[in-house]
Amino acid sequence: MKFKDSDIVSMQDFNKEDISELLKYADYASKRKLDKPLSGNVLANLFYEPSTRTRLSFETAMKRLGGSVISIDSTQASSIAKGESLADTVRVLEGYSDIIVLRHPKEGAAKMAAEFSKKPVINAGDGSNEHPTQTLTDLYTIWKEKDKIKNLKIAVLGDLKYGRTVHSLVLPLSKYEVKIYLISPQQLRIRSEWMDRIQENKAEVSEKEELRDIIKELDIIYVTRIQKERFADVQEYEKVAGYYKIDKEILKKGKDELKIMHPLPRVDEISPEVDETENAKYFDQSANGVKIRSALLYKILGG
Amino acid sequence: MKFKDSDIVSMQDFNKEDISELLKYADYASKRKLDKPLSGNVLANLFYEPSTRTRLSFETAMKRLGGSVISIDSTQASSIAKGESLADTVRVLEGYSDIIVLRHPKEGAAKMAAEFSKKPVINAGDGSNEHPTQTLTDLYTIWKEKDKIKNLKIAVLGDLKYGRTVHSLVLPLSKYEVKIYLISPQQLRIRSEWMDRIQENKAEVSEKEELRDIIKELDIIYVTRIQKERFADVQEYEKVAGYYKIDKEILKKGKDELKIMHPLPRVDEISPEVDETENAKYFDQSANGVKIRSALLYKILGG
Amino acid sequence: MKFKDSDIVSMQDFNKEDISELLKYADYASKRKLDKPLSGNVLANLFYEPSTRTRLSFETAMKRLGGSVISIDSTQASSIAKGESLADTVRVLEGYSDIIVLRHPKEGAAKMAAEFSKKPVINAGDGSNEHPTQTLTDLYTIWKEKDKIKNLKIAVLGDLKYGRTVHSLVLPLSKYEVKIYLISPQQLRIRSEWMDRIQENKAEVSEKEELRDIIKELDIIYVTRIQKERFADVQEYEKVAGYYKIDKEILKKGKDELKIMHPLPRVDEISPEVDETENAKYFDQSANGVKIRSALLYKILGG
Repeated sequence: MKFKDSDIVSMQDFNKEDISELLKYADYASKRKLDKPLSGNVLANLFYEPSTRTRLSFETAMKRLGGSVISIDSTQASSIAKGESLADTVRVLEGYSDIIVLRHPKEGAAKMAAEFSKKPVINAGDGSNEHPTQTLTDLYTIWKEKDKIKNLKIAVLGDLKYGRTVHSLVLPLSKYEVKIYLISPQQLRIRSEWMDRIQENKAEVSEKEELRDIIKELDIIYVTRIQKERFADVQEYEKVAGYYKIDKEILKKGKDELKIMHPLPRVDEISPEVDETENAKYFDQSANGVKIRSALLYKILGG
Repeated sequence: MKFKDSDIVSMQDFNKEDISELLKYADYASKRKLDKPLSGNVLANLFYEPSTRTRLSFETAMKRLGGSVISIDSTQASSIAKGESLADTVRVLEGYSDIIVLRHPKEGAAKMAAEFSKKPVINAGDGSNEHPTQTLTDLYTIWKEKDKIKNLKIAVLGDLKYGRTVHSLVLPLSKYEVKIYLISPQQLRIRSEWMDRIQENKAEVSEKEELRDIIKELDIIYVTRIQKERFADVQEYEKVAGYYKIDKEILKKGKDELKIMHPLPRVDEISPEVDETENAKYFDQSANGVKIRSALLYKILGG
Repeated sequence: MKFKDSDIVSMQDFNKEDISELLKYADYASKRKLDKPLSGNVLANLFYEPSTRTRLSFETAMKRLGGSVISIDSTQASSIAKGESLADTVRVLEGYSDIIVLRHPKEGAAKMAAEFSKKPVINAGDGSNEHPTQTLTDLYTIWKEKDKIKNLKIAVLGDLKYGRTVHSLVLPLSKYEVKIYLISPQQLRIRSEWMDRIQENKAEVSEKEELRDIIKELDIIYVTRIQKERFADVQEYEKVAGYYKIDKEILKKGKDELKIMHPLPRVDEISPEVDETENAKYFDQSANGVKIRSALLYKILGG
């Protein structure tokens, strides 16, 4: 990937060298103050769904680089959508801005927008499909915490059936020589079509129902939310949710250097008592979102 | 008009020399990068009605000039309106900002705001009355595409009874030596009081029901939306809408240099197949909105 | 108070020297153009309740100082609140921004946020508790108009039972050697627990039902809104509201240099005919909000 003037639609457009280049650049750039290299540039946030964190981290990245941001939020976007096609809205914004960040409920929306727009388009989530800048943030956090990705033992915990994490993070991760544990209750196991795709790659992947069995081996636990709505029976939900909760008690069974990640927001998958430990990395992970997006914006628009 | 520190309330405040000065300046300024001439200035967007395009084009213009923008959107404005008069809100914003851009559903709101505010006020649409920066954008687009306005043959197509285009564009256009065709279904003909005012001016104006008859003469077709709600009978609407639709077929009957304009959003007045032709100028027209507003802001606040 | 890197949670953290230092600095800084001293800094506006004026005055202050602003408005915040604790939201924003401005319906929210955030937090109103930057704005306005606070005779007029003004302004004001008249209808008298706290301080405080009796002595009248909802009987409300209304007629009984303040928005506590008089200072008071907030932001983040 050449980055400069590119669209960022899918993690499938990134090979391992592209990822490595971006992570290293994000680290390098976060350590020095650039003198507003994107001054005079305008980013358009076009959000057909609410996503405050993603929107604000792009906005923060652009502003810290000296650029400006214009925004269409989800209420405005849904009103526009009634009277105008996405293709037209994108071509109007192309006339105002230098880059478009798109969040849309429909899979493939970012790809379509990128085809219509002469200006670069960044996918900030297209339905249950992909959210590449979240994935890059997650990879960056793993790499920063462990100084490598190769040879790590990483558990992904929670709802692996409906959560976008499987598509977004586990697939690219499976291209590395890592050991991945997919840990979920029976009802929320990864779908077989995804399992097939992951198993084509280099990683060693195994499914587990129990975190306890393997926690002492792990370098990273990536926790995701288990949604109550997925369960017909509330008691069943509560049993499962309690079972997969991270607290200080279970952390004692892991290595001292075990790191806990979470894409946030959390409900009660991680007990607040964990926040103060050295294991908790989810707020750093959130802050890393600004670093990765800054690096991307700079590589696409500047440099 | 001296521009510097002026309010922009109505096209009636502009004579042809003012328009010419502004269009030329917008063209000149769009070709060179000014070094943030409005740095330190704050524009307040006060929108009592939603209008994403107008709001964002002012915002983009101000930010590209190095200035900042604060916004009261339509939801916030309607909540403010319950507890505070427009006159008070304007005087509060005057204490925060250097210029106020006002969109309001009531005719005359901009004029009233300008009387209360010591800072310049720009009318960004006051009900069905005027929207001068849209008009200036339209005139700029015509002039840029044809290198002149004089002697052109321009058709305005669609809803001429309810559309703001008649008030906003046709009246100032009629001051030039042009030939204007007003093309609409019988039910949506221009009101007689407007026709009278237009006919006082230099332009040669005629009403038509058929585009086909005269398309080969035309330099510009300005298409506007025909709203379903105007028709008691859906079949009647569909007949009319189909009849006034611009597609590649009808374009074949026009000159090669015929340019199609539209204030956007379009529904299906212009077929998407037209987008790829050299005739299509509506997305350029939209982008020109930023150039005109930049020129205005610079002439009012800077210079 | 050292200001640099401090939270601003309560007026109780300010002694008279702190207030004096800030007011003088605000005055000094408002007279000279600083060259974007907060360039590169990001302020996060986190508003769980709508408050357009407070939000925009912080935003204006930050932008005029060269900084950037990211915002979570009340609609977005209430949606976030469903899935995330305030403590988590604050720690996410801490990863994006350099300072957090918080408006929250619950008393004590700002204090709690300040405990969780490593970045400074400014209280922009926590329920019916405090709104320190409004109070500082009010003190600044009094001082600017009268060149002192000591020895002034100040009436606070209106709803002293439910209005936040008593907590926010009268208590700090009572630390000065001033004479305070609390003027309200019988039903809206200040609560005894507040009266007790105020009377501990230096000021001479007295309660009145009539403005007419003492207006000729006054230097300042601080008018607040009397809300219809507080009265069971509409006629009772109307009698009271009419009785406490400021118009040109009653101003004739006061000194020429009497100044009228109001936190805005007003409904009809002050007649519009007063706006044009030299007595009216409420729009200046509103504009002073930007000066005070600029001074605070600069002292916390810059300098």
